[in-house]
Amino acid sequence: METVKDFQWKKGITVKDYVDRLGNVGFQSIELKRASEVIIKMKKNNAKIFLTFTSNMVTSGLRGFFAQIVEKRIADIIVTTVGGIEEDIMKALGEKFRIGKFDVDDVELHEQGINRVGNLQITTESYMRFEDFLQPLLKELYDKQKRWAVSDLLREIGLKLDDENSILYQAAKNNVPIFCPAITDGSFGFHLFLFQQKYNDFVVDVVKDFGNILYSTSHDEKKGVIALGGSISKHHAILSTLLNGGADYAVYMTTAHKTSGSMSGATTQEAKSWGKVKDESDIATVNGDVTIMFPLAMIRVFEVLQEENLLE
Amino acid sequence: METVKDFQWKKGITVKDYVDRLGNVGFQSIELKRASEVIIKMKKNNAKIFLTFTSNMVTSGLRGFFAQIVEKRIADIIVTTVGGIEEDIMKALGEKFRIGKFDVDDVELHEQGINRVGNLQITTESYMRFEDFLQPLLKELYDKQKRWAVSDLLREIGLKLDDENSILYQAAKNNVPIFCPAITDGSFGFHLFLFQQKYNDFVVDVVKDFGNILYSTSHDEKKGVIALGGSISKHHAILSTLLNGGADYAVYMTTAHKTSGSMSGATTQEAKSWGKVKDESDIATVNGDVTIMFPLAMIRVFEVLQEENLLE
Amino acid sequence: METVKDFQWKKGITVKDYVDRLGNVGFQSIELKRASEVIIKMKKNNAKIFLTFTSNMVTSGLRGFFAQIVEKRIADIIVTTVGGIEEDIMKALGEKFRIGKFDVDDVELHEQGINRVGNLQITTESYMRFEDFLQPLLKELYDKQKRWAVSDLLREIGLKLDDENSILYQAAKNNVPIFCPAITDGSFGFHLFLFQQKYNDFVVDVVKDFGNILYSTSHDEKKGVIALGGSISKHHAILSTLLNGGADYAVYMTTAHKTSGSMSGATTQEAKSWGKVKDESDIATVNGDVTIMFPLAMIRVFEVLQEENLLE
Amino acid sequence: METVKDFQWKKGITVKDYVDRLGNVGFQSIELKRASEVIIKMKKNNAKIFLTFTSNMVTSGLRGFFAQIVEKRIADIIVTTVGGIEEDIMKALGEKFRIGKFDVDDVELHEQGINRVGNLQITTESYMRFEDFLQPLLKELYDKQKRWAVSDLLREIGLKLDDENSILYQAAKNNVPIFCPAITDGSFGFHLFLFQQKYNDFVVDVVKDFGNILYSTSHDEKKGVIALGGSISKHHAILSTLLNGGADYAVYMTTAHKTSGSMSGATTQEAKSWGKVKDESDIATVNGDVTIMFPLAMIRVFEVLQEENLLE
Repeated sequence: METVKDFQWKKGITVKDYVDRLGNVGFQSIELKRASEVIIKMKKNNAKIFLTFTSNMVTSGLRGFFAQIVEKRIADIIVTTVGGIEEDIMKALGEKFRIGKFDVDDVELHEQGINRVGNLQITTESYMRFEDFLQPLLKELYDKQKRWAVSDLLREIGLKLDDENSILYQAAKNNVPIFCPAITDGSFGFHLFLFQQKYNDFVVDVVKDFGNILYSTSHDEKKGVIALGGSISKHHAILSTLLNGGADYAVYMTTAHKTSGSMSGATTQEAKSWGKVKDESDIATVNGDVTIMFPLAMIRVFEVLQEENLLE
Repeated sequence: METVKDFQWKKGITVKDYVDRLGNVGFQSIELKRASEVIIKMKKNNAKIFLTFTSNMVTSGLRGFFAQIVEKRIADIIVTTVGGIEEDIMKALGEKFRIGKFDVDDVELHEQGINRVGNLQITTESYMRFEDFLQPLLKELYDKQKRWAVSDLLREIGLKLDDENSILYQAAKNNVPIFCPAITDGSFGFHLFLFQQKYNDFVVDVVKDFGNILYSTSHDEKKGVIALGGSISKHHAILSTLLNGGADYAVYMTTAHKTSGSMSGATTQEAKSWGKVKDESDIATVNGDVTIMFPLAMIRVFEVLQEENLLE
Repeated sequence: METVKDFQWKKGITVKDYVDRLGNVGFQSIELKRASEVIIKMKKNNAKIFLTFTSNMVTSGLRGFFAQIVEKRIADIIVTTVGGIEEDIMKALGEKFRIGKFDVDDVELHEQGINRVGNLQITTESYMRFEDFLQPLLKELYDKQKRWAVSDLLREIGLKLDDENSILYQAAKNNVPIFCPAITDGSFGFHLFLFQQKYNDFVVDVVKDFGNILYSTSHDEKKGVIALGGSISKHHAILSTLLNGGADYAVYMTTAHKTSGSMSGATTQEAKSWGKVKDESDIATVNGDVTIMFPLAMIRVFEVLQEENLLE
Repeated sequence: METVKDFQWKKGITVKDYVDRLGNVGFQSIELKRASEVIIKMKKNNAKIFLTFTSNMVTSGLRGFFAQIVEKRIADIIVTTVGGIEEDIMKALGEKFRIGKFDVDDVELHEQGINRVGNLQITTESYMRFEDFLQPLLKELYDKQKRWAVSDLLREIGLKLDDENSILYQAAKNNVPIFCPAITDGSFGFHLFLFQQKYNDFVVDVVKDFGNILYSTSHDEKKGVIALGGSISKHHAILSTLLNGGADYAVYMTTAHKTSGSMSGATTQEAKSWGKVKDESDIATVNGDVTIMFPLAMIRVFEVLQEENLLE
């Protein structure tokens, strides 16, 4: 039986040591260490790993971390929302997002052409340069073929980017598909619409992409889900593993709670009802802000895998 | 200056009286009354009203209430997630969803073929009967045309249903479009995929539907958003009003908080940064469970509008 | 097996009808109806009922509702924090609390001598008039005896007030003791300190009051806890029932979640570990804002008890 | 203007490096870094520092960390709830707290004599050994004097303990007073009551202790508050600084939100209404689980202060 151990600071303590000790501290710190363990288990057992995140995490500096996770071959399949796609591209094009505060004068921000995402800020200009990038690219892709599955489209875009910190770039380079079940729900969607106005036979085929995510894993493979935040990215990964017999491992990190019955707050306990996850040691739900929690858990994963020569 | 007033029970107190008094109680009760006021203002000023909700609310008994709101011509445009579409159809086909508990043995539930959504339960059989309904219908629609915008597809389905309590039925009947930006993220998506396997030229055109939501309101019209819960349904409505000059009124109800920088927790304060909402009296954010909060606010809207002969 | 039922508005719907229907809606609405049932059960089975609340609820208009609950003999024992005591007295002295907003300029408020509690506001003058009331009263009580248990002190204050909507007044009149385990944690504490500076043998005996709460119920009596919000008021009631063999019924309403391991977020599930609550039907945890949730549940309690002639 | 920077793992990354980078990540990670900065500022400007925490954090392994913070002379005044006192003593007496899960069979736990605090567990035996320790000690203190201010009582207990990881031990040794405004709200209160039954002239003087916390800082000194979680410990520290002209610095960490109007969720924005905190750079509110967040912020404080030879 594990017991609580007093935590104390030692000079120069590393993140790995810190997370190791969190496992004996209490409440969410214990769940965080468990999450780290489950991800290591996924990797050691050669599970195909779905990594899902919402767009606000790409607005944040986690964007480069997700790219690194893809580059280090931890994630096999990415699912995200379109805002995350847009902002990854903007950053690859050199845009800088500003750090502000949660409580600000939003009318004043608007007058300055600044859009707020919590305590982060994106200028309207960034969206304009994104448009300048996207429209000619869509024409180029249209010239190749008229009907595109979303993940194929995103792969082509990734190949055009030249940024080691870009999720789309690393995914394209490492053959990791990116799924985005609501590709029109953003500025991207508006540009697709403008393009289709000119080229009516241009089709974004979301139904075909459902097949792509389904075939990205098989019934016989072990499957793991790392779901950061809620939304359709989380749901889409779960749905896809479910149709292939259920996930074997699941880690959820979110600020949402299960009390509202929402997908965002649904726990890994629910994962048991998928039918394959039987063992408590294979699931973990961590409640809290992903921008702090996820790197903590994941840095420990990197360090442990590297010690054991399991990291690419 | 409004002041706090002691609340006291009176025998037979109506919901309208109750919500009236909540405005002088404190904390979220005040915001709830404000939300009710903002919705009345939307209606009196002939705003086009977007109503958005997540699928778990359709799992709940709010489904019939949404149908009534459409029937009473409060909502002009609906945005939701595909789970909500599926479950509205299941209920129209006669399926019953069970009431359980949040803390249950999920492994046991799975063995019984029961899927849990918070404290509600849907049998796997319900999904099977949904499939039996959908496949022949897709064939029928395919025979009409090969390429379908999502909202057009959903309208056709609504016309096939025969249930006054159905959202799709009432929407079809009252010419209220239903938008669903991630139509493949559910059982529905799987059936579309199976169908497309047989009929490869069957296309669900999400890009065209972006145009439909854009043209559902104009730059000159007043626009209001009632967003219940977060997710892409909320985001899609906001995006669509933004591209038409911004919403004039906004009511958000959610259990999420703004601290995580997520779309789900973003407040109507942010609405000011859209550029049109200038007046504090035109926005309201209510924090709490929508299954309790929303009917309270909305019942008062119904009663006030009826008193003034403004309800259809 | 209960099933989900579509909710629909009917003209003039009463709160009782509304809450009845909430039991078939979903998520927290179901828990709210359950809470109402558990409270009715407490009353019908003659349980001694502890009602606990935090001071912000007394800042709000729930104050008059709590007074009514005492007057109607639903609550047998009150536990609260000292802010609630202070503000009940202020209101009895005629002070008005203002309704503002959550997002305001706090520096400006300070310059105006206004103190903010969420979206409510208390002037510094109200605190000054409270002082003018309290100091002579303390002298009067001191002249009677030097050593006071807290609940005895509060009873004496209640007898001095003349306000049907006052919790202290109704409690004193109906022999309902009010316990306040941290009587010094507020303006009240400062005034006690100033008084003791002059009269060093004046003693507030918190230890004796522990005996009073312990003897307020017996081991053999049935006991129920209605805990609104968290804090020491909730904990003190639970502790007191625990030492008398455990509560038979428990209803918790709070915005806190269990994930942090805090008392505020602890659920009634935990109540089972007290040893007496065995049956699921005797406990309910409702997550959400008490200013909306609690009157809903309680109005139904009043109406049902009155219908059955069980209300005084 | 600070901008978002992509975070990437580097082998062996230290906690200090990690928190440094969090300042450019986003959402709560930025607030966490700010909290760390504010605490360093408190120390460099010789502020008297109030550290407040709730009992569940002492149940957790943060207990040893709090002791270290006292030993390193970061905190000048401690405010906590009585559960924290009890559990610090239990641990000093050799008790081990177990690590379990949030979802367990509470009836079974009860039968085994195990009490649950979130995912941690305390045996009933631990409480019995606490009683064996406390009763003779109370007699010894009573023989010295009959009337005790709470903080004096806690200091005497601290002097009896022999555990470097004990908060009470380090506080007593370093002349850091511990205030506990609701000393009877726990097992401790029950033992005080039993003792007073035998020795009626034994008095715990909470009013006198209000003077002690008031005189622990002066109007002219700079004052800082680090409030972990909510409850009366947070409120008592704020109240005490308020009566001495207001705090100059404030850091709040909590899982509660401001929407309910509760003390637990009140932000440092409110601190501005105290009248002294004028500068945004002197306050920080971090939302999240303290068991993970607080050591992160504080380790950086330790490392920075040590680098600059400011740590004892």
